[in-house]
Amino acid sequence: MDKLHEECGVFGIYDHAEPDIASVVYTALYALQHRGQESAGIAVNDDGLLTHYRNVGLVNDVFNAETLSHLPKGQMAVGHVRYCTAVEKGRSNAQPLIVNHCKGRMAIANNGCLTNGAALRREMELHGSIFHTTTDVEVIAYTIVHERLTANSIEQAIEKAMYNLEGAYTLCVMSPKKLIAARDPHGFRPLCIGQTDTGGYIFASESCALDSVGATFLRDVEPGEIVVADENGLRSITTHCGKKDTSLCVFEYVYLARPDSVVDGTSVHVARKRAGEILAQENPVEADVIIGVPDSGLDAALGYAQASGIPYGIGFLKNKYIGRTFIQPSQKQREKAVRIKLNPIADTVRGKRVVLIDDSIVRGTTCAPIIKLLRDAGATEVHMRIASPPVVCPCHYGVDTKADDLVARTHTIEEIAGMSGADTLAYLSVEGVKALAKDTKTGFCTACFTGDYPVEFNEDDNNLSKYHRKFSDNQ
Amino acid sequence: MDKLHEECGVFGIYDHAEPDIASVVYTALYALQHRGQESAGIAVNDDGLLTHYRNVGLVNDVFNAETLSHLPKGQMAVGHVRYCTAVEKGRSNAQPLIVNHCKGRMAIANNGCLTNGAALRREMELHGSIFHTTTDVEVIAYTIVHERLTANSIEQAIEKAMYNLEGAYTLCVMSPKKLIAARDPHGFRPLCIGQTDTGGYIFASESCALDSVGATFLRDVEPGEIVVADENGLRSITTHCGKKDTSLCVFEYVYLARPDSVVDGTSVHVARKRAGEILAQENPVEADVIIGVPDSGLDAALGYAQASGIPYGIGFLKNKYIGRTFIQPSQKQREKAVRIKLNPIADTVRGKRVVLIDDSIVRGTTCAPIIKLLRDAGATEVHMRIASPPVVCPCHYGVDTKADDLVARTHTIEEIAGMSGADTLAYLSVEGVKALAKDTKTGFCTACFTGDYPVEFNEDDNNLSKYHRKFSDNQ
Amino acid sequence: MDKLHEECGVFGIYDHAEPDIASVVYTALYALQHRGQESAGIAVNDDGLLTHYRNVGLVNDVFNAETLSHLPKGQMAVGHVRYCTAVEKGRSNAQPLIVNHCKGRMAIANNGCLTNGAALRREMELHGSIFHTTTDVEVIAYTIVHERLTANSIEQAIEKAMYNLEGAYTLCVMSPKKLIAARDPHGFRPLCIGQTDTGGYIFASESCALDSVGATFLRDVEPGEIVVADENGLRSITTHCGKKDTSLCVFEYVYLARPDSVVDGTSVHVARKRAGEILAQENPVEADVIIGVPDSGLDAALGYAQASGIPYGIGFLKNKYIGRTFIQPSQKQREKAVRIKLNPIADTVRGKRVVLIDDSIVRGTTCAPIIKLLRDAGATEVHMRIASPPVVCPCHYGVDTKADDLVARTHTIEEIAGMSGADTLAYLSVEGVKALAKDTKTGFCTACFTGDYPVEFNEDDNNLSKYHRKFSDNQ
Amino acid sequence: MDKLHEECGVFGIYDHAEPDIASVVYTALYALQHRGQESAGIAVNDDGLLTHYRNVGLVNDVFNAETLSHLPKGQMAVGHVRYCTAVEKGRSNAQPLIVNHCKGRMAIANNGCLTNGAALRREMELHGSIFHTTTDVEVIAYTIVHERLTANSIEQAIEKAMYNLEGAYTLCVMSPKKLIAARDPHGFRPLCIGQTDTGGYIFASESCALDSVGATFLRDVEPGEIVVADENGLRSITTHCGKKDTSLCVFEYVYLARPDSVVDGTSVHVARKRAGEILAQENPVEADVIIGVPDSGLDAALGYAQASGIPYGIGFLKNKYIGRTFIQPSQKQREKAVRIKLNPIADTVRGKRVVLIDDSIVRGTTCAPIIKLLRDAGATEVHMRIASPPVVCPCHYGVDTKADDLVARTHTIEEIAGMSGADTLAYLSVEGVKALAKDTKTGFCTACFTGDYPVEFNEDDNNLSKYHRKFSDNQ
Repeated sequence: MDKLHEECGVFGIYDHAEPDIASVVYTALYALQHRGQESAGIAVNDDGLLTHYRNVGLVNDVFNAETLSHLPKGQMAVGHVRYCTAVEKGRSNAQPLIVNHCKGRMAIANNGCLTNGAALRREMELHGSIFHTTTDVEVIAYTIVHERLTANSIEQAIEKAMYNLEGAYTLCVMSPKKLIAARDPHGFRPLCIGQTDTGGYIFASESCALDSVGATFLRDVEPGEIVVADENGLRSITTHCGKKDTSLCVFEYVYLARPDSVVDGTSVHVARKRAGEILAQENPVEADVIIGVPDSGLDAALGYAQASGIPYGIGFLKNKYIGRTFIQPSQKQREKAVRIKLNPIADTVRGKRVVLIDDSIVRGTTCAPIIKLLRDAGATEVHMRIASPPVVCPCHYGVDTKADDLVARTHTIEEIAGMSGADTLAYLSVEGVKALAKDTKTGFCTACFTGDYPVEFNEDDNNLSKYHRKFSDNQ
Repeated sequence: MDKLHEECGVFGIYDHAEPDIASVVYTALYALQHRGQESAGIAVNDDGLLTHYRNVGLVNDVFNAETLSHLPKGQMAVGHVRYCTAVEKGRSNAQPLIVNHCKGRMAIANNGCLTNGAALRREMELHGSIFHTTTDVEVIAYTIVHERLTANSIEQAIEKAMYNLEGAYTLCVMSPKKLIAARDPHGFRPLCIGQTDTGGYIFASESCALDSVGATFLRDVEPGEIVVADENGLRSITTHCGKKDTSLCVFEYVYLARPDSVVDGTSVHVARKRAGEILAQENPVEADVIIGVPDSGLDAALGYAQASGIPYGIGFLKNKYIGRTFIQPSQKQREKAVRIKLNPIADTVRGKRVVLIDDSIVRGTTCAPIIKLLRDAGATEVHMRIASPPVVCPCHYGVDTKADDLVARTHTIEEIAGMSGADTLAYLSVEGVKALAKDTKTGFCTACFTGDYPVEFNEDDNNLSKYHRKFSDNQ
Repeated sequence: MDKLHEECGVFGIYDHAEPDIASVVYTALYALQHRGQESAGIAVNDDGLLTHYRNVGLVNDVFNAETLSHLPKGQMAVGHVRYCTAVEKGRSNAQPLIVNHCKGRMAIANNGCLTNGAALRREMELHGSIFHTTTDVEVIAYTIVHERLTANSIEQAIEKAMYNLEGAYTLCVMSPKKLIAARDPHGFRPLCIGQTDTGGYIFASESCALDSVGATFLRDVEPGEIVVADENGLRSITTHCGKKDTSLCVFEYVYLARPDSVVDGTSVHVARKRAGEILAQENPVEADVIIGVPDSGLDAALGYAQASGIPYGIGFLKNKYIGRTFIQPSQKQREKAVRIKLNPIADTVRGKRVVLIDDSIVRGTTCAPIIKLLRDAGATEVHMRIASPPVVCPCHYGVDTKADDLVARTHTIEEIAGMSGADTLAYLSVEGVKALAKDTKTGFCTACFTGDYPVEFNEDDNNLSKYHRKFSDNQ
Repeated sequence: MDKLHEECGVFGIYDHAEPDIASVVYTALYALQHRGQESAGIAVNDDGLLTHYRNVGLVNDVFNAETLSHLPKGQMAVGHVRYCTAVEKGRSNAQPLIVNHCKGRMAIANNGCLTNGAALRREMELHGSIFHTTTDVEVIAYTIVHERLTANSIEQAIEKAMYNLEGAYTLCVMSPKKLIAARDPHGFRPLCIGQTDTGGYIFASESCALDSVGATFLRDVEPGEIVVADENGLRSITTHCGKKDTSLCVFEYVYLARPDSVVDGTSVHVARKRAGEILAQENPVEADVIIGVPDSGLDAALGYAQASGIPYGIGFLKNKYIGRTFIQPSQKQREKAVRIKLNPIADTVRGKRVVLIDDSIVRGTTCAPIIKLLRDAGATEVHMRIASPPVVCPCHYGVDTKADDLVARTHTIEEIAGMSGADTLAYLSVEGVKALAKDTKTGFCTACFTGDYPVEFNEDDNNLSKYHRKFSDNQ
C-alpha cells in the first residue's frame, strides 16, 4: 500500500537482573521501528535516578555507541518510537515524556490519540496548567499527575485518570518504583506482556519486540486493564471505568503490525493470509499467477493463491538498499527511475494473466505505476485485489489518514480501477475484514471502512490548528 | 585562565521589516557563542504562529541550511546559547523554553541563576504544577504564567513575578505580540538594547551581538527594569519590586564578556587593560618583557606593559585549528602534546625576565605547564601576575564555580606560586578589581573574591541533587 | 546463505541526449549495489574533460546532493561498485580507475579477478612501471595502455591486451570519444548491453541496472567480445584471442546476481526456482510446509514447494531497518538478539514438519541459529535443503571464498547436518546445478563445487601477500 | 591579508621507540594545518608493511578515532597536509603518494611546485609511463623510481632525480628501511630536522611541528641537501646537482609560516616584527595608536609601534567560533554580517588617528570593509601600512597567486588607497623585505614583488589546462 503512518510504539521493562537494560530497550525499539520512524527515546530508571535520551530520527540515528553510553545501568526503562507530522519536526515532542511533580518523577510513553485531548488541555490550562508540547501524552501525564495529588498510589491515579481520558491510548508509565501498563477500555491499540529469562517483566506494543529481546510472551493487556510491575511481581487492575465494547483497530492486522506479531490472540501473518483467502472466495478471477506487492501484500497473496489454487509467484524484486537518502536529481530521471525501488521479475508475469494483491489502498497513487510495470513486463491481464475494504473515513484514534486523501471517499471502485489501469479491481468486503481475525478476543474498530466510530470525537482534536494554534494572549 | 562556564547568552529581536529574522538571530548567537557552548536554540514568531528549533551543540552544529530552513519568516524571534553540565546532557533543557497556557503561548530565554529556584519549584509542585526540566527558566516561566492568570498583560505578569524571583536572571520573553526584556534588580548579568537599521528593536546579553548584526547600541537595560517592544515602540517599566543595591558580576569584565562588548557603560577591553595597569601599580616587577596568556590575558598584558614601561611581547602562538575533536590516542603522546594548542615564541622570551599575565586563576591547573613552556623556551625568570583577585568563593548567580575546585580557597598565594613554578606570583587586589570599571553605572558583585553575597541563597539550589533528585513517589 | 562477497559491478553509458548522465549512473549503481558494498565511484566525460568522484561506502554514503553536484553534465560516464577486503579499506582502490598516458586519458572499471595478475604486474614493474594500487584493474589498464603505444585505436589496444590477460574480467573502458565493453573469453562474469530511450547505449553487469534507469535490454556481451559505442553507434569485435570454452560462473544464478536480472539468456529468478524444483526431485521429504531463508532462499523454496506439492509458507520476518550500524553493546544481549534481524512466524511452522530452503552453505555458521529459531517456534521436524551443491573449493575468478572457510571442505554432509541441528540435510547435485539454467547460451564454471578450474591460476594471485607485500627495496 | 594558499606541509618520522607513531604524525599535522587545509594523509611503515589513510578535509575531519585505528603501530611514517584548487576536489590527489615498483614500495610527500613538471610528465608518458593524478609529486615519484632501476640505493636515485627536477620541491620519502628528506637546490620551501626524546628523527616543513610533538630542533635541511635517516642514524648528501643561488621564499616570513616557527635561522615572529620596524622607519606617520589586522598583522603592528613610539593597541576581536560552516542565508544579512568575524574594539580607536598594519595585500578586497569598520567605530584617520611590498607577479614555486588577481599589478598605490578608503597607504620596500630576516642563512626569492624569478618556468606548468587537459586519444 502507499505509506500510512501510525503514531507510535511503546516498550517498558522491569528487570532487576538485566545488566544492560538500555540495550534491551534499544533492541526492542528496532523491532518496533515500523510503528514510528520519526523519533525515538529511552528513559532509564536507576534506583530512582532517571536519565533519558530522545531525538528525531530512526532508532539507529538517535542511538549510537555514544548516546547509549550516556544511559546508566538500571532496573527499569521505557522506550518509544514515534511518527510525527512535518509541522512538528523541530519540536520537542519525542517520547518518553518526563515530568516532575510534587510526589516525584514520572516517565510516560503512549500510542494512540485521545478524542477529548483538546478539551482536557483547555480545561487544565484554565486551571493554570502549563503545557510544553502539543501531544496527547502530555495531556495524559497531566491528568494522571493531577489525580496523583489525592490518590494513594500512582496506579490509583491512573485508574482515576482513565475515567477522564477518551479515545485511544496505550501507556507505559514509569514511576520511581513501578512500571505500569494501561490500555484504553476499547483496546484500540495492541499491548502485550512478556517475561524475560531473568524473571523480569516487559510491556510492548507488539509481541515481535518480545521476540527480539528473547523474552517470552505471557498475555495481552486487556482493554481497560492496568497492569503494575513492581517488587511484588505483576498485578492487574480491571475494576475501574466501566465496561466498553472493545474495538481493536482492524488495520493493525491489515497493515500496521508486523506479520510475525501475535495481536490479541491472532497472528498478524495468519490474519493477512486469511484475508487473502476470503478475498479469493469473494472475488475470484481466472488467472495464471498470484503475486503480492512487497512487502505488505505478500501474506495475502499467498492466502489468495492457496485458496484459489492458482500458483503463487514472486512478481517483484524490492531493492533493499534504497533508504531515505536516495537523491533524485532531475524530474526526467525520477520518472525513469520508478524501477529503482521495485522491479518486476518478467519471467513470473510474461504472457500471463496476473492477480496483483495489495493489503489496502489509501491515496491510490501507487497502483498505476506498479500495474504499468507488470504490463511492460508482458502481463496480458492484471487483476487487482485488495485484502481490505475501501478506506472511506479518516481515523481519529491514531492513524494518520486525512479525509481529503482517501481516494475511495471520492471515487467509485470502477473509477479507481480505471485510474490504476487494472483490468478488474475488487476489495475485501467489510464482513470479510471482520472475519480475518476470528479468534481475536476483542471486537474491532472498522471505522475507516464504515464510518462507525466507536468513540465520538471533537473536530478540534483532529485539525492542525492544535499544532499551529495562534497566540491568543493579546495583552 | 582555565575554562570557566557561564550559563547563557540571550537575544531577542522585534522587527517587522526584517525579511529573514532567523538568520539575524543565528548571526547574533555566533557572537554570543562564548557565553554558552553546549546548546543553542531559536524561536520565531510569525504573526502569532510560533516555530522553534533547539539542540545540543555549538551554534553551527545546531543550525545548518536544513534546520534554518524549518524556521519561518517572522516579525519577532528569541535565541539562546547555553552551557549545561555533563549530567544534563541528554536532557531537553535547551532554551528558549516554549510554554502553552490558557492565554496563549510564550517563549522565554534566561541568563542567570535563581537563589530561590528550588523553593519556588517545590511550592508550585505542591499546588499541582508539573515540571519537565530542572532549569530555572522553567520556574521563571511558570511564575510568570501563574501571575498571567490574573494580570492584565504579560508585562504586568512579569512585574508581579519579579517580586517572587530572587537571585540572578536576565530574560527575553516573547508573547504573541510583544518582545519583553527584564533584568533582575541587582543587575547581575548584562543586557542591552539595540536598534536595527530598519527600525526594529533588539535585546542582547552583550553589545557585540548588536555589532554582529549591524544594529546600533541604544542603552543598557537597567537593573530591575522591564522593557517592552511592541507595535507602539519601546516602553520601560521601573516602578516595581523596590530598590536594590545593584551588583553587576565583575567577572563579566574579568573574563566572561567579549572584549569588544560594552557592558553598563564600560568597554570590557578597556576594563581588562585597566586591570593590567592597576596590577602593574600594585605589583611591579623588574622584567624585560610582558606577555599575556592568549586570548583572555592579552588585554591586561598590554595594560601592564604600558603602565610599567616594560615592552609588550607576543609570547605564544595559539593553534586556531584545535577544536573539540582533537584526539589524543595515548597518554604518552598527550603529555608531549601540550604545545599543540599553545606554543611559545622562543625569541620573545629567550634570555629574558618575563612577566606572564592571565585574567584569573580558578582551578590553577593550567599555570604550571604554561610556565614550564616559557622556561623551556629560555625565559630566565617568570613572574606571574593575575588581573583579578584570588577566587575563593563559589558563584551562586550563574557561573559554574564549585567551592572544591578553587585552588585559592585551600592554598596560599605562596603555595600556588610554588605549584605553578613561577618565580613570583601576585594577584590584583579586591580594591583593584572594583576600580577596573569605574565608569560603570552599577555596583559590583565581588562575591567570588570576597564572599560578600548580595543575595542570600539556599544550598539546595546549588547542589546536584536538584538535577538528580531521587524519585520520591513511593506509592 | 552466510554472506559472500563478489568483487564488483560495472556500468557505462554513452548518450549524447541524456541531460543528467551522472544521475543515471547513480541510479544504476543503486541497482548493482548488491555486487559491491564497500566503495562506489563515477567518472563523467564531458566532451573530453573528465571528472570523477569515488569513495569508500555504499552508493548513498558516497554520493549525495553535494558530491553529485561536483560531477558535470556529459555524454559518457562509467560507474562502479566494489567489494574490498578489510586490509584494503584505507587504500585508494575505489574504481573507476583513471589513468593519464601519452595518448590521453582513460577511465576503466572491472569485475573479475585475473589469474595472471601478479605475474603481469611483476613483469611490468621490471620494465619500469609504477603501480599505485594492488588491484587487477590497474594491471589491466597498464596492459591496455602499453599496447596503445603501438595500436591504432583504443579498441585495438584492448584486443591486443586480451591476449595477455588471463582469468576473469569484465570491463567498461572510457576513452576520450568511445565507451568500450569487454568480457573475458570464458565469460566468467555477466555483462549486457542496453539502449536508452534517447538512443544511447549502456553496458552493465546485470540487466536489473538497465531496468532501473528505464533502458531496454539489447543483448549480452559475448564471452571474448569487445563492443565499442561511439559516434557511429555500436560495433562488435570478436576476431581476437581465439576460441575458449565458455564458463559463466554458475554462482551468479545461485546467489550473486539479483533475481530480477536475466543473465546470458536465463532469468536468475527462474534459475533459482528451477534449482528448487530439481532439489525437490533429487531430495524429497515428507513435510507440511516449505519455507525459504529470506531473501536468497525464497525463489528456490517456491520451486521446491511447487515441485513437491507441499504448501509454500512464509516462515520468517526479516527486519528491514537493521543496517550496518546496529550496535550490540553486550555479549549477553547479542546472544539474545538473534531474532532482531530474523524472526520466525510461529503460526507458519508450529506443529509442522518444515523444509527449510537456502541457496547455499559456505561457512555454515548461520544454519544452526536459524534452525533453532524454528524449533523454538514449534516446528516438529526441520529438513534443510540447499539449492546448490556443497562448496568445496575457493574461487579464483572474483568471489571472495577462502578454502579455510568452507565447511563442506572439511566436514561430511552428516557432520554439517549434526552441527546445524537439522533432522536431515541434502544439497542439490552438481548435475542439478548445471541444469538450473539450461537455456543459458554459455557453459558454466562449477569450480567451487567440483574443483574443475577452467583457467589455471597462480597461488601468488590468491593470497594476501599481494596486498601486504613487504617492501623489498633494501638499499 | 586576504587568503593565500600555499600548497603543502610535509612531515616524516623515523623512530623505533615510539609506540604510537600515527598519533605523533596526527599531532604534527595539526601544527602544520595552516600550510594546507584541503586534504590530509598519513602513511605508516610497520617493518616493511605499509598502511595509509588520506582524504579530503581538515586534519580532524580526515582523522578520527576510527580512521586512526586503521593505522598500525610502526617505526616510520610520513604525513602531509595539502591545499588543492576547486577543480581538483574530487580527485585522488591527497598525499602522501604511495607507489609500487620493481624494487618495492615508496611513500612520498612534497611541498612546492616544479617548473618543468609538465615537460617531465610529457616525456615520461611518451616512454609509456601512466599517471593517475595531475600532481607534481607523482612526476617526482616517477622520476625517482626510474632512476631507482639503475641506482644502488633509494638515496642515490633521489640524487640522480634531482638533476632533472627543476623549481621548488621539499620531499619526505619513505622507502622500506629509510626515511629521506630532500630540499631543492634553491631552497624555496623550508624543511627542518628534529630529534625525538626517544632518539628518533623527524623531518618537518616548519619547526612548530617539532614543538607540537615535543621534539628538539636539530638544524634545517640545506638547499640541495638530501638527508637519510636509517638504522645507522642520520646521513647527509650534498655533493650532487651543483651549486645554486639559494632563494628561500620570503613570503614564508611575511605570511605563510607560523610565527612560532624558526625558518633557516630566523624566527618568523621576529622577522614580521622587524618588517614592522622597517616599515615604521620607511613610512612614518603621525598617529595615536597602532593596530594590526588579526592574526597575520599583529607581529608587524607590534614592531611598528615599538619603532615609532606610538602605542600598540588591540583593535579587533576575531570570533574564534566562525568556521567553514557559517551559513549566510541572505545577501542582505551577509552585508550586515561583516562584523560577525571581525569586530572593532571601539574604545581603542574612537577619536584617534589609527595606523592599521597588515602583512600584505594580494587581491585587495578585504581592506575597504575593515577600514570602514574603524571609521564607523570613530577613528578620525586610518593610515594603512603593509609589512611587505606590493605583490605584482604570480608565484611559480608553490603559492597560489594568479596574475589576474593581483590588485597591485593593475593599480597604483594611490588607486589602492582610494579603493580601500585609507587616508594614506604605504608598503614596505623591496629592500625592506630583504632585510626582515637578515640572519637567514639563504638568499631570498622575491619574485612576487619584483618579477625576478630565480628559475625559469614553462607557462604550461602554470595554467589549469594541465588539470583539465582534454582527452587527446582520437582513436
